[in-house]
Amino acid sequence: MNKNYISNNSKYIDKPKSNCAVFGIYNDQEAAVKTYFGLHALQHRGQEASGICTSEYLPEKNKYRFNIHKGHGLAHEVFSDQTLLTNVLKGNSAIGHNRYSTTGASDSRSNIQPFKVHFKEGYLALSHNGNFTNTKELRQKLQDEGTIFQTTSDSEILLHLIARSKKEELVDKILEAIRQVRGAYSIMLLSDDKLFAIRDPYAVRPLSMGKLGDSFVFASETCAFDIINAEYIREVKPGEVIMIDKEVIETGKEKSYIIENTGQTRHCIFEYVYFSRPDSTIFGNTVDKARRKLGKNLAIEKPAPKSPVEYKKVVVISVPDSSNTATLGFLTEGIKTNKYMKLELALIRSHYIGRTFIQPGQNNREIKVKTKFNTVKAAIKDRIVVIVDDSIVRGTTMKQLVKLVKEAKPKEIHLRITSPPIIAPCHYGMDFPSREELVANQCENDMEKIRQYLDVDSVEYLSLENLHASVPQGIDEYGYKIGYCDACFSGNYPIPIEHIDKFEFEDN
Amino acid sequence: MNKNYISNNSKYIDKPKSNCAVFGIYNDQEAAVKTYFGLHALQHRGQEASGICTSEYLPEKNKYRFNIHKGHGLAHEVFSDQTLLTNVLKGNSAIGHNRYSTTGASDSRSNIQPFKVHFKEGYLALSHNGNFTNTKELRQKLQDEGTIFQTTSDSEILLHLIARSKKEELVDKILEAIRQVRGAYSIMLLSDDKLFAIRDPYAVRPLSMGKLGDSFVFASETCAFDIINAEYIREVKPGEVIMIDKEVIETGKEKSYIIENTGQTRHCIFEYVYFSRPDSTIFGNTVDKARRKLGKNLAIEKPAPKSPVEYKKVVVISVPDSSNTATLGFLTEGIKTNKYMKLELALIRSHYIGRTFIQPGQNNREIKVKTKFNTVKAAIKDRIVVIVDDSIVRGTTMKQLVKLVKEAKPKEIHLRITSPPIIAPCHYGMDFPSREELVANQCENDMEKIRQYLDVDSVEYLSLENLHASVPQGIDEYGYKIGYCDACFSGNYPIPIEHIDKFEFEDN
Amino acid sequence: MNKNYISNNSKYIDKPKSNCAVFGIYNDQEAAVKTYFGLHALQHRGQEASGICTSEYLPEKNKYRFNIHKGHGLAHEVFSDQTLLTNVLKGNSAIGHNRYSTTGASDSRSNIQPFKVHFKEGYLALSHNGNFTNTKELRQKLQDEGTIFQTTSDSEILLHLIARSKKEELVDKILEAIRQVRGAYSIMLLSDDKLFAIRDPYAVRPLSMGKLGDSFVFASETCAFDIINAEYIREVKPGEVIMIDKEVIETGKEKSYIIENTGQTRHCIFEYVYFSRPDSTIFGNTVDKARRKLGKNLAIEKPAPKSPVEYKKVVVISVPDSSNTATLGFLTEGIKTNKYMKLELALIRSHYIGRTFIQPGQNNREIKVKTKFNTVKAAIKDRIVVIVDDSIVRGTTMKQLVKLVKEAKPKEIHLRITSPPIIAPCHYGMDFPSREELVANQCENDMEKIRQYLDVDSVEYLSLENLHASVPQGIDEYGYKIGYCDACFSGNYPIPIEHIDKFEFEDN
Amino acid sequence: MNKNYISNNSKYIDKPKSNCAVFGIYNDQEAAVKTYFGLHALQHRGQEASGICTSEYLPEKNKYRFNIHKGHGLAHEVFSDQTLLTNVLKGNSAIGHNRYSTTGASDSRSNIQPFKVHFKEGYLALSHNGNFTNTKELRQKLQDEGTIFQTTSDSEILLHLIARSKKEELVDKILEAIRQVRGAYSIMLLSDDKLFAIRDPYAVRPLSMGKLGDSFVFASETCAFDIINAEYIREVKPGEVIMIDKEVIETGKEKSYIIENTGQTRHCIFEYVYFSRPDSTIFGNTVDKARRKLGKNLAIEKPAPKSPVEYKKVVVISVPDSSNTATLGFLTEGIKTNKYMKLELALIRSHYIGRTFIQPGQNNREIKVKTKFNTVKAAIKDRIVVIVDDSIVRGTTMKQLVKLVKEAKPKEIHLRITSPPIIAPCHYGMDFPSREELVANQCENDMEKIRQYLDVDSVEYLSLENLHASVPQGIDEYGYKIGYCDACFSGNYPIPIEHIDKFEFEDN
Repeated sequence: MNKNYISNNSKYIDKPKSNCAVFGIYNDQEAAVKTYFGLHALQHRGQEASGICTSEYLPEKNKYRFNIHKGHGLAHEVFSDQTLLTNVLKGNSAIGHNRYSTTGASDSRSNIQPFKVHFKEGYLALSHNGNFTNTKELRQKLQDEGTIFQTTSDSEILLHLIARSKKEELVDKILEAIRQVRGAYSIMLLSDDKLFAIRDPYAVRPLSMGKLGDSFVFASETCAFDIINAEYIREVKPGEVIMIDKEVIETGKEKSYIIENTGQTRHCIFEYVYFSRPDSTIFGNTVDKARRKLGKNLAIEKPAPKSPVEYKKVVVISVPDSSNTATLGFLTEGIKTNKYMKLELALIRSHYIGRTFIQPGQNNREIKVKTKFNTVKAAIKDRIVVIVDDSIVRGTTMKQLVKLVKEAKPKEIHLRITSPPIIAPCHYGMDFPSREELVANQCENDMEKIRQYLDVDSVEYLSLENLHASVPQGIDEYGYKIGYCDACFSGNYPIPIEHIDKFEFEDN
Repeated sequence: MNKNYISNNSKYIDKPKSNCAVFGIYNDQEAAVKTYFGLHALQHRGQEASGICTSEYLPEKNKYRFNIHKGHGLAHEVFSDQTLLTNVLKGNSAIGHNRYSTTGASDSRSNIQPFKVHFKEGYLALSHNGNFTNTKELRQKLQDEGTIFQTTSDSEILLHLIARSKKEELVDKILEAIRQVRGAYSIMLLSDDKLFAIRDPYAVRPLSMGKLGDSFVFASETCAFDIINAEYIREVKPGEVIMIDKEVIETGKEKSYIIENTGQTRHCIFEYVYFSRPDSTIFGNTVDKARRKLGKNLAIEKPAPKSPVEYKKVVVISVPDSSNTATLGFLTEGIKTNKYMKLELALIRSHYIGRTFIQPGQNNREIKVKTKFNTVKAAIKDRIVVIVDDSIVRGTTMKQLVKLVKEAKPKEIHLRITSPPIIAPCHYGMDFPSREELVANQCENDMEKIRQYLDVDSVEYLSLENLHASVPQGIDEYGYKIGYCDACFSGNYPIPIEHIDKFEFEDN
Repeated sequence: MNKNYISNNSKYIDKPKSNCAVFGIYNDQEAAVKTYFGLHALQHRGQEASGICTSEYLPEKNKYRFNIHKGHGLAHEVFSDQTLLTNVLKGNSAIGHNRYSTTGASDSRSNIQPFKVHFKEGYLALSHNGNFTNTKELRQKLQDEGTIFQTTSDSEILLHLIARSKKEELVDKILEAIRQVRGAYSIMLLSDDKLFAIRDPYAVRPLSMGKLGDSFVFASETCAFDIINAEYIREVKPGEVIMIDKEVIETGKEKSYIIENTGQTRHCIFEYVYFSRPDSTIFGNTVDKARRKLGKNLAIEKPAPKSPVEYKKVVVISVPDSSNTATLGFLTEGIKTNKYMKLELALIRSHYIGRTFIQPGQNNREIKVKTKFNTVKAAIKDRIVVIVDDSIVRGTTMKQLVKLVKEAKPKEIHLRITSPPIIAPCHYGMDFPSREELVANQCENDMEKIRQYLDVDSVEYLSLENLHASVPQGIDEYGYKIGYCDACFSGNYPIPIEHIDKFEFEDN
Repeated sequence: MNKNYISNNSKYIDKPKSNCAVFGIYNDQEAAVKTYFGLHALQHRGQEASGICTSEYLPEKNKYRFNIHKGHGLAHEVFSDQTLLTNVLKGNSAIGHNRYSTTGASDSRSNIQPFKVHFKEGYLALSHNGNFTNTKELRQKLQDEGTIFQTTSDSEILLHLIARSKKEELVDKILEAIRQVRGAYSIMLLSDDKLFAIRDPYAVRPLSMGKLGDSFVFASETCAFDIINAEYIREVKPGEVIMIDKEVIETGKEKSYIIENTGQTRHCIFEYVYFSRPDSTIFGNTVDKARRKLGKNLAIEKPAPKSPVEYKKVVVISVPDSSNTATLGFLTEGIKTNKYMKLELALIRSHYIGRTFIQPGQNNREIKVKTKFNTVKAAIKDRIVVIVDDSIVRGTTMKQLVKLVKEAKPKEIHLRITSPPIIAPCHYGMDFPSREELVANQCENDMEKIRQYLDVDSVEYLSLENLHASVPQGIDEYGYKIGYCDACFSGNYPIPIEHIDKFEFEDN
């Protein structure tokens, strides 16, 4: 409670928040240390809390002990004490979790993952990225049977279902349990002597497998493999449960089980737009490449304005760091039609954490933006400025950013967004503001109103059609027809959802 | 993890550790603040962790929310932030808990009470003082039925049993559940709109009920009532479940249910010897009075040595603060036979927390004792010194204390202990070292060996018979025959215990 | 700033605050560790800040380095990190300081001692207990000559005076400097290779010398010697400067210089009444003995009331822990005239730090007292109660304490104070509230008004005459006529003081 | 001590460290808050410690009080408590300081600026960026006159010189004092009722003046004006002392005094290369523009290799964020000669603070680089890669970075550096490693050896000539001939330096 985790930089960004990163490793003497570095590399997927759980074999007792440490804050804050990783979190297998979510609940601490429980066959620990969509019904059923819940997280449900399964083998218990839940999930599950990677049948959230010597590793994005020098092997398949045990280490070949084969995927398209790091491979493809194409297609569909006489004065600006890659794609294409168009690094981002001191009458949001961004005035003055960004959620930060750029006295400001207007919430693991707060909805999806609200000369979004055209299509290497979930842009939810209030169990 | 709770003063004392204090309050607008002060007054019963859970009614939702905060450290450390108590822990009813136990487990945090869970009828929170003695069997049965455990505490079992009860009414669920457990327990249980005080049929641990205006309060000891100006009403009876709800507030009369009527009690006699504060009322009686009588009876049974010529040189010393009261009883009686005997405040205790810096070759235990005690040399020099203490566990601290007193050059040192030798562990809520570590066992219960080990001129203990003769006897106000558990002195366990390794679930 | 040092227990006590403890050690490989333990033993003399400075010889450079660490809080808080003492604060000589003072100043940190400076002949570090009384004039003169001050402490002046001395030898510089200041001071001064103990010509504050093997140690009270097993050698004489250097270590005989010989002392009499620990030797005498005599003489001069019929109901209560010793003296004497009078440990003090949560309309002072004290009701009910305390300053705490005792329904409450009414501030190192806040002054020194204010049946103070009669008199071992400063009781200041506002340099 | 300031990101970068940022403001009701934001914007100039001192007028006393708070860590860590800025640091004028330096000294705390002292005419506080070069002689002289030093900082000297000046007026005292010191300095000096901005005659370090309504502000770089919406007015001139007092506020015209007019400047050329933010104006010019020109001139002088057949495979990579601007200049020019050359954002920088856990046998530096950077493999594979960076100091980080890029399997790696090899230390305020540690010196300035050490296909630096050609030249607006200090590249020191060991006073 005494950590200033609420002053985190990420709070200033008007973007959807991912609900997590997961990581798992099996058969590595430094399992906790490797997991820590994996979580560091995945920090962008969740900055509120971090946790690691290891399975340690105690030879003198011929038993396993699960060691766990978790807390609010960034991974390096939660694991600031090296002895934690090396002396406390002993064991050759581990799972980890970064989380972005649900501040404010007075006992939010109990919701930090991994969850660790004990059941009749030993320990289980779970890290979950995504959301189950039929939790209300399952929770009701379990409670009616006398189950108690110690967290408000949907993830706890899976542990109860596994423990209650009458199947003999653990993997069969898991399969029976996971088949009862619907939704989007990339899950790492650690038992006394096995590690499971579980992915929903539509493969909404990313999850990859890698190897490091004899160890098997799993992570939400491959940037977590790079930091520990692990090699990317393959995606966890849609609806696949991968089991790693001692035998797997010996054979070098993971065991694979299928929950359900839908023949198609519904990857979260927003992972390409904003979430994932450009240096990661997700869904079997390089993020950098897709993001560049988003910029390119935007430049074709909604080109920057041509200034008939004063060509040289059209400058393109990215909003660092998140739109840098897309901006490069936009520029490269844009130059084809306007050869005098050029890139300026005219928005400078401070990478030090800022803080705002609320004064009566002050514009707090303005100071927030100013602690994060500043302009190179000479690069903007008298120019036609095109700002490229990946998405707009509430629009509040963008409005301030435009104001900031305006202080440098450009001739015109044009906004180009490499995705369509966001109009609907995510039920598969992203944390958006409410439907009413979204700027597109507030302006009734009227571009002119959005333009006026943001106070720019023009604002243009990439169309949904071109969004899809920018990301990989076709049949993937496992034979699945590649499809995407674009619910936040279209309102079409590919996986059925029950009508739930997210905080229902938080507050009742 | 960054709190220095391990440097706590209590670690230097070679005494049994109580496993907890409980507190509950119903119908008070400052429920959390009152609970905090109650926990402060009960701090001596547990210094490792502290927690408070409140039930808050949300009128706009017609629902309840349970707010909880807990952590390692003393109550004032855990609740150092006033906003916690006043803004976060809102609600008109609350339970609290202080805990002494189980350090070292890497996830000991999950064992801090109160426990809060959600079940089909709403929230439940539990604070427990004591120990269940048939947990192994119950836990096994519950796990076989598919139950998962999130803590290693025996207390969690009760919550599962309640949730699984098929009874209609909550109080009946509780009765059905509690009747399945054996052992010693004083429990506060908070539901959305009710507060329950639960005590085992032998009333091993203390638990009292009080009132503060229209509020009902419960606490392990009445000193917790004094600090908030509440009035002591009565003991919770052996085997009684008291329920407080809205109706009770209106009528002013608590609802009472009986688990089982054994017709007798087995109060922990050690509560009178050492645990409870002298200003508390427990088991319906004043601790101060019993403790004085322990000293008096010791003076009769095992008087201080008479120094034939030099009467004036017999001085009595207490080990502050715990043996002060008993020493006064010893002295008052002793003067009758040796009118020149006198009290000296010759051991001065530092009430500042000390710290030891381990150097190779240093006597660490010696410096521990020296950071806590010092002698008034002039009051000891050339005197026959009688040190009165309440109990000896390992004997290590007493050995150092004797060495310290010896540096002041007394003529002789005599030890008088106001309880018998401790020879057996407690299974009802006290935390002793292992049987092998007890000095009485180490010396094979041979008084001469103990004397030599402690390096004193004589050492004498109160007999078990006189121990019982010093504490209230007869029939209590509810008609129960008053009896005591003296298992730590006699090895006789009044309530059956299964053979369990305390840390079994911690490590397996 | 992030330490909760303001919640310190000492804040609840209505007593004068000492301005410090000093400690010094020379020629010890564990100089910092020893100093830490000395400061721990002297914690009662200052709880706001603590600091240690060591002199470390660097053989490779043939130079000295001074290592220093200091901070707000108790010694164990400031030196919570063992590596500080063992790895950072290296060196064979050290001085330390505990401080009670001047909270609230935004830069109070710069006033924490020891002060460390560099001057033309190397380093100097200083710890000071007491107050200079001609600082205004000296500071003005130094500033006029172009000196800058980095603290608001009077102690800094001495360092400037030493550095500006034209004398050749360091000891002569010190003598020249110290002869320019007036006031009360017990000072430890560390140079690169020497340690100096300096005491004012009236020996107002205590300062003793001890030995530990080949090491020389100095401390405000001898309890600091006991904790490190050092042997008490003698008092630093009035007006003496003791110098310890390598030669002294070889000869085993300290070098002594005299500032001024007044032939008499003006020991602070309040050290015997309240400040010093009963297990300490100060001014060459045992505190315990003097404090017992204060109680005895009070019992003679202002005996407890005789209850003609119900003798047995007169009980004597101390206010733990500070008045325990005096109460024993009072009781022992009192019994001679009222043999049924008896001691009750009826006030129980909590040694856990409390905290108050300020609520509108609440009596904050009441809860402060209740977090610290509780009564054993049965020992008070229907009794004539005599509370013995050592002193009353503002009277606010005593008023609440009386109220607390009253809740236990005694027949009568009588207050007996083992010192006269406090009527004047101290200018020699104690921190009192202002003259106007003192209860004696508020009640115009009218005993009846004080009685009414405190709401007791009688209140009696020891007379100034009997105060002096209770403490050692005559000629001390060095031939000085023993005299005392009783300014706080009499208003007579034995050492001239300039009229200064204590915070003058703090705020101007 | 409990802040993790040592894990600061900046430690991983192999760059010279600036010795500070200064900021000052006069006549603003939120002086401390504005200063805080200024320090946040200037955080890149010093990340080890931060401090603010305000002058508060106390009308009831007709006096001033100086409030100060400083500590180790980033500005937002040191000023994490809003009440500090709004309630403690009251006053209408303030100065602030960020610092990078001298870790490890046990009392480094005393060296954190601003320094605050009291002298005969009131308070003085000082913030200093730069270094005095004749401190040894001045310090010796002052000590010989009896001055004591409380810090090891050269900056303290100036305060002593001012206090010892016999001049009547404060500004004359300052002029007399500053004329005695040599070196590079941009200083903010706050007195009770005046603010002074002081700059050395060669204007080595930047210092600008701005206005915000009626307030005057000063800062090392203009990005500190932008964040508080202040307007840039002008440079503080070489050798100028600007005084702001009440009269200045009324007239709106600052008072200007000249220390010495050399007719020329010796601006630190490294400020353009690396130190200053691209969005700042320093030395009267935009940093962005100069930095772009450095890249451009490098592209002309040392172009990227032409790959005769496979043009498209030449990709340019910046080392984010510091070389982004220069890389853009390099690319823009480079495309002219190789139209298929293109920019790739192939190095991704994590902006979360990393941590390394030292394991025996591990390559610690490798993991440091990996916690900070990762590659977009697809953008590098099989390409001819040109990495543009601004400077190389030790070369250790660059070596690891090259290794990291190599893992992505480029065809070739070429390094282009937008400044010449660093061969000599800075004596004017930058913190370099020792001469021996510089990679250029280690490799005896042999390009081939450097290439081999860094393990690249080619490495080329900008020549000293072209470095100068890239930055503004001529006569500045005040008539000074613009010149630069390039000592770190050339070994030519424009201002005489005494031979001093930087830590001389730290350790002696």
